[in-house]
Amino acid sequence: MTLKLSATEVTEFLSQVFPQVKNDFTIEALEEMRSSVRLNVGDRHLRPGGTVSGPAIFALADVAFYITLLGMIGREALTVTTNCAIDFMRKPAANADLIAESRVLKLGRSLAVGDVLIFSDGMTEPVARASLTYAIPPVRTSQP
Amino acid sequence: MTLKLSATEVTEFLSQVFPQVKNDFTIEALEEMRSSVRLNVGDRHLRPGGTVSGPAIFALADVAFYITLLGMIGREALTVTTNCAIDFMRKPAANADLIAESRVLKLGRSLAVGDVLIFSDGMTEPVARASLTYAIPPVRTSQP
Amino acid sequence: MTLKLSATEVTEFLSQVFPQVKNDFTIEALEEMRSSVRLNVGDRHLRPGGTVSGPAIFALADVAFYITLLGMIGREALTVTTNCAIDFMRKPAANADLIAESRVLKLGRSLAVGDVLIFSDGMTEPVARASLTYAIPPVRTSQP
Amino acid sequence: MTLKLSATEVTEFLSQVFPQVKNDFTIEALEEMRSSVRLNVGDRHLRPGGTVSGPAIFALADVAFYITLLGMIGREALTVTTNCAIDFMRKPAANADLIAESRVLKLGRSLAVGDVLIFSDGMTEPVARASLTYAIPPVRTSQP
Repeated sequence: MTLKLSATEVTEFLSQVFPQVKNDFTIEALEEMRSSVRLNVGDRHLRPGGTVSGPAIFALADVAFYITLLGMIGREALTVTTNCAIDFMRKPAANADLIAESRVLKLGRSLAVGDVLIFSDGMTEPVARASLTYAIPPVRTSQP
Repeated sequence: MTLKLSATEVTEFLSQVFPQVKNDFTIEALEEMRSSVRLNVGDRHLRPGGTVSGPAIFALADVAFYITLLGMIGREALTVTTNCAIDFMRKPAANADLIAESRVLKLGRSLAVGDVLIFSDGMTEPVARASLTYAIPPVRTSQP
Repeated sequence: MTLKLSATEVTEFLSQVFPQVKNDFTIEALEEMRSSVRLNVGDRHLRPGGTVSGPAIFALADVAFYITLLGMIGREALTVTTNCAIDFMRKPAANADLIAESRVLKLGRSLAVGDVLIFSDGMTEPVARASLTYAIPPVRTSQP
Repeated sequence: MTLKLSATEVTEFLSQVFPQVKNDFTIEALEEMRSSVRLNVGDRHLRPGGTVSGPAIFALADVAFYITLLGMIGREALTVTTNCAIDFMRKPAANADLIAESRVLKLGRSLAVGDVLIFSDGMTEPVARASLTYAIPPVRTSQP
């Protein structure tokens, strides 16, 4: 399986479908079945004390896996998260971006499954890990 | 076990420790081991099409369970989420608040476990379900 | 939605498709979207100390939700578990059966989602909770 | 961090504390923070059709991560699973053992978190993935 979209094409697609978060994320790398995505941490992602909030970490995991899927299956805005199990393991470093390393473990016709490790930029021990399932809508073969 | 904090006291505590989200959530009810919390849906919670985003649903589940815990154990700002498994089951209704019904299933000395059902306001079929684990910091017994 | 199979019919079906475990489980009650299932605890389910093992608790959660689904959708031996998130909260009581209370939260065309609470028989605080997703195979509409 | 126990020592310990499953599992490799463990598939692990059952896959994930932990922290029979999220992705191959590749992502004082990929022996696409949390009992420092 080869990539259907490049990092540039995925970035452009995301800025169309999710304009409100388009500046939050930067695709660092997009390869077959895996990607590396940066959360450009800003004040809106922080809790008092300067660490990134749980919902912002969840959002990064979700977007990172979605980006990897988009690379593999092409523009499918209707693809939706059905399940996420996330472990918060360490406090993120203050004043550091987060990096999500995601991979697809199964790319089926109706379900895609994968996982994500999240690091504070420059650190080797992960802040969080997540596994995700996305439902892929059936291909409409008979459209006019 | 009885409540250590009332809904008013929990609301006040949250607005001190999480000032950036204090207007997002309203405690509808707080009882022993359970609560009902409203997400006051605004533009910042929406995806194109008008439905509430996954990260906003996650944030609601997380805050709702935290509120139930605060009611039971008192002001413990250091209590942290260690795990969340969430299933997204239905698209939220457009232009409707979300309501989270949470309960504590175990309140141990170091871990609390519970779950949350999330509904679009006025609907009977849940939008999402989540189970969460929080780590409770050890009691410091020898403080001066 | 009404039941397609009675408790007796589900029991009979299970003993055909899973003969090796047919004596492990007893359906205590089967209603629309929910059931109560007993694990008849035997030596093979125990760990040293006399408590039920984690895999036996997992098996009970999985079977209990499958039983509830069978009641709703009829004989579908191909239905398969795709995801389970389980929290082990308390040590089961020694020398006691386990009771699983399961419910379906979503019964879609291709996915069913629900959760299960597991108790030592006679206790009010749950031993474990689990959420499960099952994939339902597409209906074959044009078979001769 | 270095290993506190070798594969031989862990195998011996397991056969003492879990005598009923000691022949089910073989440690293929045990290194710092990771291990490879084989499920010696027998009739008792199979469903009709010859594939390994869900509970047997769960048991393998749980034991594999426990083995990795034992290697790192030494004989701690009281260490218990508190959470597991498992995705079943593909049908296991018939008549093949399963291999679990596990790693520890966090080894804290009271919680250990990690994940496991499970393969049919000789296959490259995983059958299942699991993430697990174990609670580690406090060290008793003042024992006579």
